[in-house]
Order: sequence, then C-alpha cells, then structure tokens
Amino acid sequence: MVPTDTAFAAYSAQIRQEVDAALAERIDFGSECPVELRAAIAHGLLAPGKRLRPVLVLTACEACGSNRSRALPAACAVEMIHAYSLIHDDLPAMDDDDVRRGRPSCHAAFGEATAILAGDALQARAFEVLANEVEPGSTAARCCAVLAAAAGPEALVGGQMDDLHGVAPDDSVAWLESVHARKTGALFLACLQLGGLTGGGDGQQLELLEQYGRRLGLAFQIIDDLLDVEGDATVVGKQTRKDQQRGRPTFPGLFGNEESRARAEQLIDEACAYLSPLGSAASPLEALAHYVVERNH
Amino acid sequence: MVPTDTAFAAYSAQIRQEVDAALAERIDFGSECPVELRAAIAHGLLAPGKRLRPVLVLTACEACGSNRSRALPAACAVEMIHAYSLIHDDLPAMDDDDVRRGRPSCHAAFGEATAILAGDALQARAFEVLANEVEPGSTAARCCAVLAAAAGPEALVGGQMDDLHGVAPDDSVAWLESVHARKTGALFLACLQLGGLTGGGDGQQLELLEQYGRRLGLAFQIIDDLLDVEGDATVVGKQTRKDQQRGRPTFPGLFGNEESRARAEQLIDEACAYLSPLGSAASPLEALAHYVVERNH
Repeated sequence: MVPTDTAFAAYSAQIRQEVDAALAERIDFGSECPVELRAAIAHGLLAPGKRLRPVLVLTACEACGSNRSRALPAACAVEMIHAYSLIHDDLPAMDDDDVRRGRPSCHAAFGEATAILAGDALQARAFEVLANEVEPGSTAARCCAVLAAAAGPEALVGGQMDDLHGVAPDDSVAWLESVHARKTGALFLACLQLGGLTGGGDGQQLELLEQYGRRLGLAFQIIDDLLDVEGDATVVGKQTRKDQQRGRPTFPGLFGNEESRARAEQLIDEACAYLSPLGSAASPLEALAHYVVERNH
Repeated sequence: MVPTDTAFAAYSAQIRQEVDAALAERIDFGSECPVELRAAIAHGLLAPGKRLRPVLVLTACEACGSNRSRALPAACAVEMIHAYSLIHDDLPAMDDDDVRRGRPSCHAAFGEATAILAGDALQARAFEVLANEVEPGSTAARCCAVLAAAAGPEALVGGQMDDLHGVAPDDSVAWLESVHARKTGALFLACLQLGGLTGGGDGQQLELLEQYGRRLGLAFQIIDDLLDVEGDATVVGKQTRKDQQRGRPTFPGLFGNEESRARAEQLIDEACAYLSPLGSAASPLEALAHYVVERNH
C-alpha cells in the first residue's frame, strides 16, 4: 500500500527532523575547528532543504526490513557530500552562483577561501561519520567505498567537470545522460546502496534498490531541468533559466517539456516496479518516487 | 642499528619508486573521468616529491614487523590527501601560489575550476582506496576514520583556515603550535597510525609510533619554517620567504634560527627514543627522523 500524499508528507517531515538533528550533532566540533569554519559548514549543511538523499537512505534501510536508525550515520554522510558539492559548485570559478536554497551561497556569505575549506571539511567529515559509526566495521568499509566512488572523479566530480566545461558533443543526448548519471545519479544510487547495506539487505534486495535508484536519479534530474525552465525562482530557491543562459543541453531543450515529463513519469513507473518484491516495507520509497516527479522545488 | 645515510637513501628511493608506481595505478581511471581532470590529478599527485608521508606509512608498518606491501594502499591514500591539500592551498583564493615543487601549481596549469575539482576528486579517491584495499574491512574502517579525522575541520582544514586568516593572537607560540599540529602534524600522526594499523601493530606499538609521530611532525614544520627563511627557492622548489611577507608567526621569527634548529633536533631525539622498544625493525624510522632535520628541501 502506497501511503497517501499526506501520510508521506508527514512521514518525510518526521525523517527530515531526525536528519536535521543528527546533522547538527555531527558538526558540533571541538575548539580545534575555527568558529568561522564551523559557521560556514553549518550554513551549507543545515540550510533548509528537502533532505531527499538522507530520506532515500533511511527509507531504503527500512525497505530491507531494518530500523532506520541504523542508517542515520550513512544518511548524514550522504547529505554532507551533497552539501559540499553544492558549496563548491557555487564558487565563482565554477557555476558562480550567489544564491542557493533562497539564501546567500556559502562563498557569498563567508568568502571564497572559507567556502572551499568548508566543502573540503564536509567531505572529510562524511567519511569520518561513516567509518566511525556504521557497524560492523566491515559494513562501514563497504559504505565508505560506495560513497567514495560516487563522490569521485568517475562520478560526481567527473560529471561536474564535464557539465562545467560543457564540451559540445556530437551526441547531446548521450552527453547529457552521461553528465547526469555521474553528477546526480551516482549519489542517488549510493543512497540506495548505503540504505541497503546498513539495513542488512541481501543481494537481491540490493539489486532491486539499485535498479530503482538508477531510474529515480535520472527522473529527478529531468524534473530539475524542467523546473529550471518552468519554475519560479522564488519557489525553486535558486536562480532559474541558468541552463538556457549557458547553452547547456537539457532534457526539455532536447525533447521538449511534455516529452521530458512523460519520460520522467515512465522512469518512475519502472523504478516502482522494481519495488514490488520488497513488499509493503518499500511503500515509502514508492511514495517518494511519486513525490520526485510531482515536486515544484 | 640505524642505517647509514647512504643505506637509508637507497631504501627510501626504493620505497618512493614503489609508491609512485602504486599511485599511478590508482589514478588509472575509466572513461567516466574527463581526460583533463585526470591530467590535473596526475599533475598534482605524481609531481616529483619526497613522498615523505607514504614512506612514513610504510616504514611504520615495517616497524610493527609486517611486510610493507600491506600498507601500500594506506600510503597512497595519505599522499592523495596531501596532494589535494596542496592543490587547494595554492588556489588564488587561498595562498595564491603559482609554483609548487618547482612546477606550475595545478590551477596555474589547468585553471581554477579544474584544480578545485582535482583536489575534491583526490580526497574522495583516497577514501575509496583505503576502504576497498585495506584488509580486513574492520581495519579499513579504522583507517578511514583516522585519515578522515586528520583531514577534517578539527585538523588539516582547521589548521589551514587559521593559517590563512592569520588571526593575530595574544600568544603567538601557542597559535603557531596549534596551527602546525593541525595543518601538518595531524597528517604525520595519521601516517604512523595507518602504518601501525595495517601492520597489525598492538596497542603498545601504536602508542610508541604516535609519540614518535607527534614529535616528528612538529620538527618537520620547524625545519620547513627554517627553509622558508634560509632556503634557496630553486632547491626548496617553491617560493621562499613567503611567511615573512605575510607577517605570519614562524618558529625562526619567534625563537631565532639557531634555537629553532636546536628545538627541532631535540624533538627528533625524543621521537627516536620512543622507537627503542620496537628494536631494529624501527631503524628506518630513526634514519627518516634524522633525514627530516637534515634535509635542504
């Protein structure tokens, strides 16, 4: 049974609260961390947000029949990687964005050097949290390997590099899918893997979660492109129509708005089909998938 | 028995060769890594260097009576963290250095955005290598935790932040020691811990290695400050007298050159005293300590 929109909204609001508290605890550094650095880290990490990735980690853990508290450190680690990547993406040398989630981006508020360092620190902290808190140690190591691969040069960083330099390719569709698979998709996939691993999922459960995650990640990005075209900056919380200004290929640009949305919806249907064998424990993942295509920010 | 200078030179040259080959192997990325990103990573990571930190990891492993090949992934991970921190430290928004190890710094050669991303990728890759390659998984997790703490906001990043902003403190000596303990010392200490952990060291062995590492790290930094004052830029391989230009407190500035050198030598004597219980297996660590105070670059 898929929870109703209202039930899912309440469920995810509850999870967001748990995640926000857990994140705040994990950046309660000692005096060796300069005050200004701590403030910049908090600005980037604790900014109001959907916490979609942590919610994914926790619901994937539950989908394996485990208690989501087991996945909380992994959920925090993923959000730290996500927050670091946003801080660095916004830098003047990169996307040069002064606004993020409706507030000044990290470098706009704290200066460029501090923003670079805040991002660097968040990445390190993500792995420290995973390595220290996930039990047993062998699972912690697997989680670190999964997250590091998703954050590395063949995934997150490589995708950002290609997106930034926007090499005009012969095949825009392949280029676009490859950039998204690395820049957004890999971390989405890692969320499902981390949730599955910390939830003690077996091989089949992990495989189903991964198939779901691949499709969800791509659908998320298609909708993100659509929001950039159709969205209202005050609702989306960041500058819109930037893709267009940059001449960067987008799904709506290549396929039109309607076909893009249809494609996202189809991906979500496919994603949800993979959840069936997981039974009712996976209902929140199904609701989350529908939320992803229906969101307006 | 401490190896002669010549014997240690040959030993460390052999280790450097092993490390350089291992590093090159570990950045042999697939096609998902953009070519330019791979080039920037290689530029930063494979630049000719002393490989002091990897040598420390490997000799610490041997000091526990283990084969140093067990510590090779950890040695690579530490050098990746070190290389990433140099790339980011050199950025225009940070120390703004165009020269590093006698060659253009990463951003001077590849641009700022690529340099930021190369550093980010190296940090992720460091944890991937540790998590995937150190055996057993529980040791891999401990290694990740140690390295992440050393690279985090309370250590490496926090030290760089304070160094950069050079807050004029009431107590320059305490400020200087605190910055160095975090910016340089923590990673030195992590080298010894990683070598000890991968070498299967027991509690007492790890404790001795840590005591040695704390003193070695501080001595290294005092000598670094001295080289900045006394050194020849063409030999040191980076711009000298920068500390002075920045008005940053330094050991020679606070204590004079002679007393600083005497202090470094005393620290090295103390460091080496901790090695005695480890017997002849720790001889290379002793030789390395003497190299650290006698080096001219």
